[in-house]
Amino acid sequence: MPELRKDPVIKRWVIIATERSKRPHDFKREKEEIKAGFCPFDYGNEHTTPPEIFAFRPPDTGPDTPGWWVRVVPNKFPALNPELEIERYGVGMYDAMTGFGFHEVIVETPDHFATLATLDYKQVQEVVWAYKIRYNQLKKDERIKYILIFKNHGKDAGASLQHPHSQLIALPIVPKRVEEELNGSKEYFEYKERCVFCDIIREEKRDKERIIEENEFFIAFAPFASRFPFETWILSKKHNHDFGDITEEEVKYFAKILKNILYRIYIALDNPPYNMMIHTAPANGEGKKYYHWHIEIVPRLTKVAGFEWGSGFYINPTPPEDAAKFLREVEIKEE
Amino acid sequence: MPELRKDPVIKRWVIIATERSKRPHDFKREKEEIKAGFCPFDYGNEHTTPPEIFAFRPPDTGPDTPGWWVRVVPNKFPALNPELEIERYGVGMYDAMTGFGFHEVIVETPDHFATLATLDYKQVQEVVWAYKIRYNQLKKDERIKYILIFKNHGKDAGASLQHPHSQLIALPIVPKRVEEELNGSKEYFEYKERCVFCDIIREEKRDKERIIEENEFFIAFAPFASRFPFETWILSKKHNHDFGDITEEEVKYFAKILKNILYRIYIALDNPPYNMMIHTAPANGEGKKYYHWHIEIVPRLTKVAGFEWGSGFYINPTPPEDAAKFLREVEIKEE
Repeated sequence: MPELRKDPVIKRWVIIATERSKRPHDFKREKEEIKAGFCPFDYGNEHTTPPEIFAFRPPDTGPDTPGWWVRVVPNKFPALNPELEIERYGVGMYDAMTGFGFHEVIVETPDHFATLATLDYKQVQEVVWAYKIRYNQLKKDERIKYILIFKNHGKDAGASLQHPHSQLIALPIVPKRVEEELNGSKEYFEYKERCVFCDIIREEKRDKERIIEENEFFIAFAPFASRFPFETWILSKKHNHDFGDITEEEVKYFAKILKNILYRIYIALDNPPYNMMIHTAPANGEGKKYYHWHIEIVPRLTKVAGFEWGSGFYINPTPPEDAAKFLREVEIKEE
Repeated sequence: MPELRKDPVIKRWVIIATERSKRPHDFKREKEEIKAGFCPFDYGNEHTTPPEIFAFRPPDTGPDTPGWWVRVVPNKFPALNPELEIERYGVGMYDAMTGFGFHEVIVETPDHFATLATLDYKQVQEVVWAYKIRYNQLKKDERIKYILIFKNHGKDAGASLQHPHSQLIALPIVPKRVEEELNGSKEYFEYKERCVFCDIIREEKRDKERIIEENEFFIAFAPFASRFPFETWILSKKHNHDFGDITEEEVKYFAKILKNILYRIYIALDNPPYNMMIHTAPANGEGKKYYHWHIEIVPRLTKVAGFEWGSGFYINPTPPEDAAKFLREVEIKEE
């Protein structure tokens, strides 16, 4: 029987079609082949990107030369421009502002044919370190209100380059969805005097059915009101609103659960396109008590999205309990 | 220079990439071929759908036989079930309810190979009449909180059948996006004592740059803070919150502008996949003073959607002023 379920943070209802549950093999699609040929993120082509912001590289190599293992560069076709002055203005009855901001690329590995799901834990840790370093640098810029770290994997998830990379956008505004989470978690905190995300972790641990994996510091589960088949969230077990506070020890556990979850998705769904986003507090530190940073991973398996954009209404053909079971069953080879 | 623009109703910021504006021919894609073969919506296959709810058909033909020109049937694979009792319950800390609701299909023409963009005005009127009739019937059901009429055109917009059809979902809840519009327009009304949508119409008529077409009763334009390239809204010039109130005369003008807009998109963008949704007030009539029904049409040209789902943050590579110009330039042959 279909069930309507409500997201406890932003109060969005979704339809979970429990009756005709779609299993992993129901999501067939054409496989995307990784093409060789010129790539600006390969060794030797460093001069074809804008000058690097930083890279993890041997001390005897210079910037914009090979040898690096993670490299952060400005996006060559940025959506926003860091050179602009921030100016707010009216256009008739409307509100607008100059498109100030940063748009950067984190190249996750020199290996063009690799994927985050199959890199080793150490390399994924290095990627997370690159996220953290650049995030904390940009947070110091007072013009920045929000830093969005995300990854589009595969053409159908919006990736225009196949070489493994993540992106970072630093914005002079807080995106709507984040604001909704802030408002929702604040309201919950005012009512219950507890963090809603901490409550979700407790509930998931009690129920167990939607948990995919957990370790000392992190827990990964399919959210109760999942919008999409195999949607997965990873939360820090310790309450913290700010991704930038992640400790050295936590980075190890975070990289491990992140890689394992991506690997489970890679195996169970045959390397599907996916989007991944870090939801963290605004740059001004708002939400210390009631917000809780986390990562959302959404495999792109269904095509019904356009209607759902417009209505905020989602029909999910795979109950999260089933999705969690399929992902749990994937065997993880510990390194 | 990129510009950040804010939607005046729901206050969502989007990035308009004014610098490297994408023109219609930049959105290349594989063309979808309309396949013949068995189709449940063709003449002669009426028995393969659930029994019809109603149809426009000659008086000498019986239900579920050929001869109809518009036919409304229950969805064979409904997302919701009209037989269920509505029951709200808790699942641990979460909220859920039974998946009560209606999910129906409006078959727009017996012609398998037609498209709404190229049907004649009279036939589009008949489709709008079918929307209106079924909408007003379901509105009388006190269990129904919201009636969503929408259309997915093309596989990449989520259409699983190629035969021209729209869908209707009647829900025991109000979808999040509609609630946001209700809240936003209510807040504006409280502040300005005017309908925000009426103000938008005045502003667009003053500015002219984003208008695509208008007639005595309706106006179509590319919204100032368009999320997507060639996004188009059609508004009734007369303030009204409820689509179900559309008059006989208005249906004619509405069908005309709707068909013309879809035809402009069809020509300018070479029959792209698109989603179309009617945004109207909740079934209880809430929003009479401050809400304003309208239709949103979103061609599916870019693939960056997944990330945008998760962040509520949109990057639109085609400024609405450019989109409106391209669509205005398409020549309309009046019948």
